[in-house]
Amino acid sequence: MINIGVADTTFARYDMAASAIDELKRIGTGFKIVRRTVPGIKDLPVACKKLIEEQGCGIVIALGMPGPADKDRVCAHEASQGLIHAQLLTNTHIIEVFVHEDETTDGRELAKLADHRSREHARNAYDMMFHPERLAKNAGKGLREGFGDAGPVE
Amino acid sequence: MINIGVADTTFARYDMAASAIDELKRIGTGFKIVRRTVPGIKDLPVACKKLIEEQGCGIVIALGMPGPADKDRVCAHEASQGLIHAQLLTNTHIIEVFVHEDETTDGRELAKLADHRSREHARNAYDMMFHPERLAKNAGKGLREGFGDAGPVE
Amino acid sequence: MINIGVADTTFARYDMAASAIDELKRIGTGFKIVRRTVPGIKDLPVACKKLIEEQGCGIVIALGMPGPADKDRVCAHEASQGLIHAQLLTNTHIIEVFVHEDETTDGRELAKLADHRSREHARNAYDMMFHPERLAKNAGKGLREGFGDAGPVE
Amino acid sequence: MINIGVADTTFARYDMAASAIDELKRIGTGFKIVRRTVPGIKDLPVACKKLIEEQGCGIVIALGMPGPADKDRVCAHEASQGLIHAQLLTNTHIIEVFVHEDETTDGRELAKLADHRSREHARNAYDMMFHPERLAKNAGKGLREGFGDAGPVE
Amino acid sequence: MINIGVADTTFARYDMAASAIDELKRIGTGFKIVRRTVPGIKDLPVACKKLIEEQGCGIVIALGMPGPADKDRVCAHEASQGLIHAQLLTNTHIIEVFVHEDETTDGRELAKLADHRSREHARNAYDMMFHPERLAKNAGKGLREGFGDAGPVE
Repeated sequence: MINIGVADTTFARYDMAASAIDELKRIGTGFKIVRRTVPGIKDLPVACKKLIEEQGCGIVIALGMPGPADKDRVCAHEASQGLIHAQLLTNTHIIEVFVHEDETTDGRELAKLADHRSREHARNAYDMMFHPERLAKNAGKGLREGFGDAGPVE
Repeated sequence: MINIGVADTTFARYDMAASAIDELKRIGTGFKIVRRTVPGIKDLPVACKKLIEEQGCGIVIALGMPGPADKDRVCAHEASQGLIHAQLLTNTHIIEVFVHEDETTDGRELAKLADHRSREHARNAYDMMFHPERLAKNAGKGLREGFGDAGPVE
Repeated sequence: MINIGVADTTFARYDMAASAIDELKRIGTGFKIVRRTVPGIKDLPVACKKLIEEQGCGIVIALGMPGPADKDRVCAHEASQGLIHAQLLTNTHIIEVFVHEDETTDGRELAKLADHRSREHARNAYDMMFHPERLAKNAGKGLREGFGDAGPVE
Repeated sequence: MINIGVADTTFARYDMAASAIDELKRIGTGFKIVRRTVPGIKDLPVACKKLIEEQGCGIVIALGMPGPADKDRVCAHEASQGLIHAQLLTNTHIIEVFVHEDETTDGRELAKLADHRSREHARNAYDMMFHPERLAKNAGKGLREGFGDAGPVE
Repeated sequence: MINIGVADTTFARYDMAASAIDELKRIGTGFKIVRRTVPGIKDLPVACKKLIEEQGCGIVIALGMPGPADKDRVCAHEASQGLIHAQLLTNTHIIEVFVHEDETTDGRELAKLADHRSREHARNAYDMMFHPERLAKNAGKGLREGFGDAGPVE
């Protein structure tokens, strides 16, 4: 039985973790989900590391929704660096799922984007644990999460 | 008995630690507060790490007030990276409470913002230690500290 | 028998790993290739570290294609920092092969650039493992991968 | 007997370490000063770490004077990140004393600023070692080093 | 017998390592030079760490020539961060010698700058190993490598 960690925030304006967890439950079994909610995205790196080292998670999904200001962009950068660092210290993948509030101006569309991206990355996390060959098959295919795929060049 | 660390600076123009400590004392018992004051925000990361490793703190609140210049923004970025790094090295949460001097132009409002944000994050720290389920309940709710909440999309 | 790691992404719009692997097979023997595909470039650092520490790779080629937006540039920066960090933690070279989508506006040219750069860096990786004297001979020669060489000054 | 480290550069255009050392000698006894001079500010992080780990310093003062160009600003950022990292790896405070050449346009004023800031931070370092209660008393007081204090808000 | 490491790149448009090595041989004896050439500056951090940990170098000179584009500036920043990190992990100085292609528009001058800076930093490295008192004597003197010295203020 593998533990999959899900870390999210009270800052986000959509319950992205609910989408990710729902998707995980639809696509497979053989794992247990451990969820932790923290205030903001800068609290995610250590939350993920604790999920790995204290809760035995074999992979973690880290979800957040940075705001539209310059300050928020810097926060997201710091959080991303921390998430990469946490992975290097644990030899464990953490799938970062960030939806920037300014990726769309429409609230309804933002909710849809957050839902879709969370679900698609939940599938990525699942595949990385149980079906890595599915990722290999899509190498260089220009896949995008949340929006339509870009596809291969030409 | 759990130790809660509080680290702040002489650079800040408001005694944010006093607000955080007052709030902690209002909302609960069962913990001891250990406070350290350093010159500036770049001194906070190691101060917090020492509170965790040398004073046995189970969580730390790091309070600072970066100035309005470009140079100050870079300082805040460096301090934030250091705080995330300190967390990863200790598997312990450090709640960063930064109030940027240019978030408002009015002195009185800045003081109010610093007081409110420090108190709200003190509650976050307390909940993370003693009531993590309260954070889970607010996942994706668009909470903000110091200002009014943004709320969920739509 | 030396293992050479190849890590790439489903985000990239060209199968750069196929080019690198084809080139490796053309130029030599005496090694085994281990390939891992991850969603995006920020997943590469830990993927490479795992190739080194869990699959025994003596060198890794990390291939990715960052998009043209500001956000993509930040992602590439974070990934590059992580790749350097992974190298320092393992004392093992990871050859970063990034092709930025905006290095050219023509799809066909982008594909050619991705193919050429991947092949030339595959040769670099091979030489670093088996023929370091070839790199020493080209020190300060203004070599470029993917485009024509800049050559030495004057 | 406590060792206080002082690290400075040949790049700086003022002998800031001389000011810091003179101030340390005026304000107290019970410590020995160990000084190291390196070429530039990017050499300071490891110089400070060596002062801590190889010379047994309980605190270090790191002095430098970044130039006015964009490139210099990046150097200062890299040095600051390194100094924070060195602190986290040693659980020891390093007081950064940087004077940017463009903080003033007048040579004489720059010299005065460098002298004052070095002395005030020497006192900070001394207090952190021997009188931490003095920093606690000044928490949130808007202290500045080198220029006049900003003071608390309102 | 002390080993001095020299790490350089095939990307650079001038053989800076040759200048550094020639200078080292002119100024002293009692050391052995170990040279490694890598493709680009981002490969330098781990190359230097390997020179220290696998070849027993007591100090390393890292030479590179970043290009003039924004992307090159980011590369140089990443390389510099990695070089500082490598020093902190080994408690060993690595003298970074970067010449930016856009420091001058004239090819002949660029070659001269690269030659001079490499030689002056080779002397810095030599002095740091064998005559640290020479650096101490020049503290705060506004020294510059490659161009004329700025000198002390006033």
